[in-house]
Amino acid sequence: MAERYVYSFGGGEAEGGKELKQLLGGKGANLCEMTRIGVPVPPGFVLTTDVCRAYLRDRSYPEELREAVSGSLKRVEALTGKGFGDEDDPLLVSVRSGASVSMPGMMDTILNLGLNDHTVEGLARQSGDRRFAFDAYRRFVQMYGNVVMGVPNHDFERDLERIKAEERAHEDTDLSADALARAVRIFREHVEEVTGRDFPSDPADQLWGAIDAVFDSWDNARARAYRRVHNIPRDLGTAVNVMAMVFGNLGESSGTGVAFTRDPSTGEQTLFGEFLVNAQGEDVVAGIRDPLPLDRMRTDLPDAYAELNEAASTLERHYRDVQDLEFTVERGTLYMLQTRTAKRTAAAAVRSAVDMEAEGLISRDEAVLRVDPSQLDQLLHPGLDPEAEVEVLATGLPASPGAAAGLVVFNPDEAAERGTAGEDVILVRRETSPEDFHGMVAARGILTARGGMTSHAAVVARGMGKCCVAGARNVRVDEAYGRFEAGGAVVEAGDWITLDGATGRVILGRVPTVEPQMSEQFRTLMKWADERRRLRVRANADTPHDAETGRGFGAEGIGLCRTEHMFFEDGRIDAVREMILAENPADRSAALERLLPMQRADFVGIFRAMDGLPVTVRLLDPPLHEFLPYGAAEIKSLARKTGQDPARLRAQVEAHRESNPMLGHRGVRLAMSLPELPRMQARAIFEAAYAVRQEGMEVIPEIMVPLIATEEEFRRQKEIIDAVAAEVHADAGGEPLPYLVGTMIELPRAALIADRIAETAEFFSFGTNDLTQTTFGLSRDDAGSFLPMYVEEGILSADPFQTLDIDGVGQLVEMGTREGRRARPGLKVGVCGEHGGDPSSVIFFDGVGLDYVSCSPYRVPAARLAAAQATLKGRPVESSERATEKAPALA
Amino acid sequence: MAERYVYSFGGGEAEGGKELKQLLGGKGANLCEMTRIGVPVPPGFVLTTDVCRAYLRDRSYPEELREAVSGSLKRVEALTGKGFGDEDDPLLVSVRSGASVSMPGMMDTILNLGLNDHTVEGLARQSGDRRFAFDAYRRFVQMYGNVVMGVPNHDFERDLERIKAEERAHEDTDLSADALARAVRIFREHVEEVTGRDFPSDPADQLWGAIDAVFDSWDNARARAYRRVHNIPRDLGTAVNVMAMVFGNLGESSGTGVAFTRDPSTGEQTLFGEFLVNAQGEDVVAGIRDPLPLDRMRTDLPDAYAELNEAASTLERHYRDVQDLEFTVERGTLYMLQTRTAKRTAAAAVRSAVDMEAEGLISRDEAVLRVDPSQLDQLLHPGLDPEAEVEVLATGLPASPGAAAGLVVFNPDEAAERGTAGEDVILVRRETSPEDFHGMVAARGILTARGGMTSHAAVVARGMGKCCVAGARNVRVDEAYGRFEAGGAVVEAGDWITLDGATGRVILGRVPTVEPQMSEQFRTLMKWADERRRLRVRANADTPHDAETGRGFGAEGIGLCRTEHMFFEDGRIDAVREMILAENPADRSAALERLLPMQRADFVGIFRAMDGLPVTVRLLDPPLHEFLPYGAAEIKSLARKTGQDPARLRAQVEAHRESNPMLGHRGVRLAMSLPELPRMQARAIFEAAYAVRQEGMEVIPEIMVPLIATEEEFRRQKEIIDAVAAEVHADAGGEPLPYLVGTMIELPRAALIADRIAETAEFFSFGTNDLTQTTFGLSRDDAGSFLPMYVEEGILSADPFQTLDIDGVGQLVEMGTREGRRARPGLKVGVCGEHGGDPSSVIFFDGVGLDYVSCSPYRVPAARLAAAQATLKGRPVESSERATEKAPALA
Repeated sequence: MAERYVYSFGGGEAEGGKELKQLLGGKGANLCEMTRIGVPVPPGFVLTTDVCRAYLRDRSYPEELREAVSGSLKRVEALTGKGFGDEDDPLLVSVRSGASVSMPGMMDTILNLGLNDHTVEGLARQSGDRRFAFDAYRRFVQMYGNVVMGVPNHDFERDLERIKAEERAHEDTDLSADALARAVRIFREHVEEVTGRDFPSDPADQLWGAIDAVFDSWDNARARAYRRVHNIPRDLGTAVNVMAMVFGNLGESSGTGVAFTRDPSTGEQTLFGEFLVNAQGEDVVAGIRDPLPLDRMRTDLPDAYAELNEAASTLERHYRDVQDLEFTVERGTLYMLQTRTAKRTAAAAVRSAVDMEAEGLISRDEAVLRVDPSQLDQLLHPGLDPEAEVEVLATGLPASPGAAAGLVVFNPDEAAERGTAGEDVILVRRETSPEDFHGMVAARGILTARGGMTSHAAVVARGMGKCCVAGARNVRVDEAYGRFEAGGAVVEAGDWITLDGATGRVILGRVPTVEPQMSEQFRTLMKWADERRRLRVRANADTPHDAETGRGFGAEGIGLCRTEHMFFEDGRIDAVREMILAENPADRSAALERLLPMQRADFVGIFRAMDGLPVTVRLLDPPLHEFLPYGAAEIKSLARKTGQDPARLRAQVEAHRESNPMLGHRGVRLAMSLPELPRMQARAIFEAAYAVRQEGMEVIPEIMVPLIATEEEFRRQKEIIDAVAAEVHADAGGEPLPYLVGTMIELPRAALIADRIAETAEFFSFGTNDLTQTTFGLSRDDAGSFLPMYVEEGILSADPFQTLDIDGVGQLVEMGTREGRRARPGLKVGVCGEHGGDPSSVIFFDGVGLDYVSCSPYRVPAARLAAAQATLKGRPVESSERATEKAPALA
Repeated sequence: MAERYVYSFGGGEAEGGKELKQLLGGKGANLCEMTRIGVPVPPGFVLTTDVCRAYLRDRSYPEELREAVSGSLKRVEALTGKGFGDEDDPLLVSVRSGASVSMPGMMDTILNLGLNDHTVEGLARQSGDRRFAFDAYRRFVQMYGNVVMGVPNHDFERDLERIKAEERAHEDTDLSADALARAVRIFREHVEEVTGRDFPSDPADQLWGAIDAVFDSWDNARARAYRRVHNIPRDLGTAVNVMAMVFGNLGESSGTGVAFTRDPSTGEQTLFGEFLVNAQGEDVVAGIRDPLPLDRMRTDLPDAYAELNEAASTLERHYRDVQDLEFTVERGTLYMLQTRTAKRTAAAAVRSAVDMEAEGLISRDEAVLRVDPSQLDQLLHPGLDPEAEVEVLATGLPASPGAAAGLVVFNPDEAAERGTAGEDVILVRRETSPEDFHGMVAARGILTARGGMTSHAAVVARGMGKCCVAGARNVRVDEAYGRFEAGGAVVEAGDWITLDGATGRVILGRVPTVEPQMSEQFRTLMKWADERRRLRVRANADTPHDAETGRGFGAEGIGLCRTEHMFFEDGRIDAVREMILAENPADRSAALERLLPMQRADFVGIFRAMDGLPVTVRLLDPPLHEFLPYGAAEIKSLARKTGQDPARLRAQVEAHRESNPMLGHRGVRLAMSLPELPRMQARAIFEAAYAVRQEGMEVIPEIMVPLIATEEEFRRQKEIIDAVAAEVHADAGGEPLPYLVGTMIELPRAALIADRIAETAEFFSFGTNDLTQTTFGLSRDDAGSFLPMYVEEGILSADPFQTLDIDGVGQLVEMGTREGRRARPGLKVGVCGEHGGDPSSVIFFDGVGLDYVSCSPYRVPAARLAAAQATLKGRPVESSERATEKAPALA
């Protein structure tokens, strides 16, 4: 036989199945598969992606196609007992696109195809419902006119509104059969006027028009752009699904609904869903009538319910995963219209995966692969009480998950004071800066009007596991007057608001929250993940509290302990400022001398919390002006405190300002200019390390130099650090404490000369946040004005600050790792940017061979799971033998 | 014979020569060579770099060394008739380091070695000058104590001052022999007290101490750091030169001097130099007595002069280059102490190279290699009258060469007005921004207090060939009060100052300047360069005037025409601002509509100037806020003009501010957000191109999209540009005008994905300024606070904004070129950053295989010459056969 272009299904038999997903598309393959395993599906057929490829190549169809389609149509006619174009008992069909990957821009569904002025009368007679028949006709003309012939849907809606007004009809359902017949006439005339083409009356012409439209939609501009960005080959092509129509709106013994084989919220093993009697799928979507819980079908349509139950059970066992089903009951007979893997909450994903392993449906490997790591966040943070009524003022970015209610405070000092005193406060700022840190620590949640998912507020809040809504652009903050305006309301300082970090909602008033529960299944799944992963997972933590949180979530060390936040704490900022503004090394050393014991105490706390695990401490990174006062009032106040001339102080502060602070005097450049600074920090680290060891604990310090661009910078810093280590050891006595000195790789140049840096550096940690900024030439703080548009329009496949840009930044990570290890075999390499907690990035890091990823404490579980999935994706997954035994007929 | 560790020279014979530069160091090899070709040199010997390597390895000397040194010493004794340590007629020697490359931190000279309390009496007797002998002894102890034994020189100076005070001596020369003997005693006691070691009396001990010190200095910290940064292998090693002392201070028939075989300022073929009767080399350096022109030697020491003349001629013909000679006449006998290639001005370099070719001394290839391209700038700009007396107020960076005098103006509007009216003005700013452009155009020179060699002021000034002194940190500018303070003086608006762009000097008052002269020799040399180079050279030019200047200097096209400056011109900025602040596309289009004819007129002028040559136009690049008003007054004024609410306007302006503008909403990102903008610019370009072609000229437009990070950005921009091209062609008719659409490669990511970009891009131009900024994570504007320190301390071998960082940025240039051409064979690739005019960078670009470099018009000749040198360095250079014929004995 020549190539087969059309695959039929129906009557319990199908010419294909799920193994032909590439050829039949996901939807078509599943329709065949369901038919084949005995689930009731209306008969139909699939035009393969080969046809699509031929059409794209030749702008015409293979010769044999028309005959094949007409053969398949005959088969459907035979199975349904109806005739396509038959004026007495017309066969109507739906036409849908369906590729093996889902893609935006593709043609949507055409329903009721086959109707014209003659067949509609047959349908009216057969159904005994003239209004039903003309409503179906009206819907068809509208869909076809819009989707196939390109007339804006808005035109039809406008005409329909006019008719309703003339008929004094309130709802569509109030329109009579005659009114609907008039609508059909008006629609068709309008289409012909706009397009200059006849509206096809011949059902065959209708069908081929719809098929053309599906294939053409594969190549429209939006789809082309999407494919380019997502590396989808053009010649993958789409299939076309043609299926006999069934109707749920033929009276009280008909209906339509959706069902999940398990509860998609909780994972509970129960058939879950909704249905509507005497309705079509569209009506459910339109929300005109409230659907009923599926349970009600048990009493309303008991036979169909029993059949549905059986089909659901068959499908779940066959596909070995939770299924999301669409069905229609036509005059008592159940038809399954679609089955697909169900979307589910994190809780449901975890529970169903662990349950299914116990049921023998899937293996542990498979269970680990079943849960999307990026969902796990949901399980670790409090959420809003789902029962509560809420008044949403604005929606920003869901920058850090969790939910929090509190009194609005605009001033970080006040937030620090009242928060520490035990009040629930929400810090509201236009945007935050490191100076606001103490206020952020004490607040229950943070709301900013500017900044993106990786703005200062977002990064710091995620690090603390604190709820944050960032970049809520409709929130107009007036910090001076102590109020903000949003959604028409004015919120004053002291009013209650609630933030929902999971959705980005800003809610007026105090909404109750529910605490997270870490289930038994969650712990089981994480255990399985840990047994499988190669990559180690550390936490980014700047305080003993964060360190403990990270350890509690399974972190195997600290991958990034930033020291700058320590500089902002109460009582320190003055010494820091004196150090910065010092006119000579002696004054600078005096100020640093005062900081030393405080910094040492910080490290003591962190080393204790991480007894036995490595702690990577990054030396001071931000530009010094971040520590200086900003406004005139603050400058004046500092001048008063230090007895300086305010004008002179302002000039000094001004001199520290930079045009592009991200690319300025920061990181190791500070340490090169002010060697007293790394000396003090190294001393604080080593003194703390020796002291904690004295307490009988094991301390493994790893000192990290930030922003290295040249090997010489690192070499000189390492000399300083090693010298301090020797001094402290000389004073402390005992065995020398082992430590490592390494560097961030966060500039393209560092990755490019990694071999030279690795000659002296003892470990690397990729700072992928800054590396992304410099590789793209893109500031996180400023990207808000165009990056969302880039992602939306498909210029970038994802926000590169959230998901590592493998094509660009990934090349540098790969190159840096390879070259670093060439110079120093076995070099320890990690990553400590935000990407360390992003599941798809983690898979890349595992592939490159990094030793560990480090992320904020609350993302540690997600990273552990993603690391396990990375391992599993790199080798054949063990499938459950028991599952195979139990369902041998379906394998 | 075993390895030879010591090479002797003297008495017309030498054991080595210039071919042994690696083994004997530059200085030692030349001493041997001079001896060998019959030039009178005091006898001596060289310890080879092999000895240095052995010493570095073993901390001891090869066994045979002592014997070899003592044998060589004997030979010197025999030739001089003196004895080393002989109390009657002592041999004294000098000891000097000498590697094959010069390096900072190496040990300096020790003179008069061999003196002690006994031999000094012999020297006194032999010379008949007791004071001379003790002065020599005092100098020796001071040098040895400082250089070999490590006592600070300041200690000796302090003791000597005390003795002078006690003796009531005004100058060193007033000290008697006894006073000098006392100084020797005090010096020795001080050395012994500080070091706890005896000052060596035995000449052999003195000699070995000095030899140790030379070899130790090879490995000191400063030398090590320098070698690391400059990739000089440690085991290159240094040689040690030991040579019999001769004295120019033994009366009226003695003397010392320096000579150049041609005038180092003009290149004129005449023996040129200075000498002092009855003096040592040190005295010339100390500047106590004014040296006489060498010509005077003709009458004062006629025989020695004749000998010197002959030696100079021999050496120049032997080395086939202008020589810089040191000599001493001891009681009528001439000794040559050193010969090396002479440093010279650009004028001298060009003239001597072309003359020497005519004289048959060198080939044309060699002549082209003889001139340092970076010097050529000197020949193209006016300079200060060298005769003028000047009062220097401050010194900044020599940011753009030339010299200019003018009235101080602080306000760019005023500068524009008065400059256009014909007044000579100097624009003085704390720093400049694109808004100051009109004032910079009209000023004679620009002075800024902040910013580096690649700050806005510097780049723009160089582009215009206008004198600029940038980053003069001691100039405190008070723009509000219209004055600046520097060097203790207060300069008001309207005062005269003069800038020297060649040295960075800021001079009070009006200093006369002299115009540049392009000599016949210059034109000859450039012709030879053009005949040899492969790389094409284009100019960066934004105006017809700059385009003409570039073409006049030999540019073969425009490699970068920035369009942003056009937006600042009179009458346009208002339309630009309206475009930016427009609330909807219609208002924006209206504003752009007004800009279109002006922008078209700009291109018409440039295309006319470049008839027949390609012109690369870069679409708008800077962030939009650069075009917005800055201060409150300006905002108010704009609000008045446009009838907007000032508060609202201020908020809009504020919303455009960015944290890191360099990494913000600029380049193609603007074009993606505001597609009307590239559409307008493309239309202006094509309409201008068709119009100029209509005039009978050839127009070759190349449209360049800036700041590409993804292939999709470029693809969409190219679609816009191609569509506009088709529209304009449809209106204009005729043959379609050929054009290219390409992109800047100025972000690391663009270089990393160059293959994908090249699928649609028709040319690449590396924007190495921005590429350096992002690769290093280093903002040009902010680097001033640490980059100079980095270069000074050897962390970087050069300012990467001036000389391409080959190790890092160079990798990306190489990778981008290779990958781009892999996707599109024959892809045209150029560079248009500042590095395009930097000679050593040009050599790299030639090696990578770029098609062209583009630089500011005044650097075009340097780039042409550097390109020729790059070609010559890649193949065997043809040496002059005539030269070889003429001097066969010396070959």
